[in-house]
Amino acid sequence: MKNINRRQFTKKASWLTGSALLSSAAPVNYPVVHHVFFWLKNPQSVSDRDKLVAGVKTLAKIKSVRQLHVGIVAGTEKRDVVDQSWAVSELIFFSDLAGQETYQSHPVHLEFIKNYSHLWDKVVVYDAQNV
Amino acid sequence: MKNINRRQFTKKASWLTGSALLSSAAPVNYPVVHHVFFWLKNPQSVSDRDKLVAGVKTLAKIKSVRQLHVGIVAGTEKRDVVDQSWAVSELIFFSDLAGQETYQSHPVHLEFIKNYSHLWDKVVVYDAQNV
Repeated sequence: MKNINRRQFTKKASWLTGSALLSSAAPVNYPVVHHVFFWLKNPQSVSDRDKLVAGVKTLAKIKSVRQLHVGIVAGTEKRDVVDQSWAVSELIFFSDLAGQETYQSHPVHLEFIKNYSHLWDKVVVYDAQNV
Repeated sequence: MKNINRRQFTKKASWLTGSALLSSAAPVNYPVVHHVFFWLKNPQSVSDRDKLVAGVKTLAKIKSVRQLHVGIVAGTEKRDVVDQSWAVSELIFFSDLAGQETYQSHPVHLEFIKNYSHLWDKVVVYDAQNV
């Protein structure tokens, strides 16, 4: 349902504004952005990293998760401001703060923590509201 | 052009897979994700925060920037793992690593640094490659 709405939104937006909106790298309309970075207990273990990646992907089952992106450290240039010490990133878009709350207490999320938290040493979360 | 391609992708994907892909919170196809968090020199200054927000939004002019999301700290619950000490977030999707390199040295990005870096005290960047 949510994705049908998104397609309708895209179609409507392009009809209303022509290429103006579309050419400005318009973000999708999910304004609550949950950025999570995980550091592994065994940072050298590709196997543990891949297990955690698989675990994070289970979070897509939660209905309030509008988009889920799972990442590993990209091969960009080393610069002082770039933190490359983490192992797995989780980026989730929610439609609203209520969606984030639903996610936090959702059985699929609790199951993820139960099954995968032994793999990580540290987690840092940044919750942003698009402006 | 890039957004026409995206619309074509969405249309094709929905035709190929019916609702399966669309119902799994499928991420858009921009696999390089550049997360940036800014801490202000004057963390209490809403005016400085808003100036920086406006500055970050200029980055949408860079063609390799496929999506730009600009955020401020969301009103989610306070938890030990949630960092709420930053002020402005910049989230950019690129099609590839080359797009990120183009962005780094692009005149619009250099102008942004020149005009707005006096506002920030610290920047942390996480570059992720979706998996």
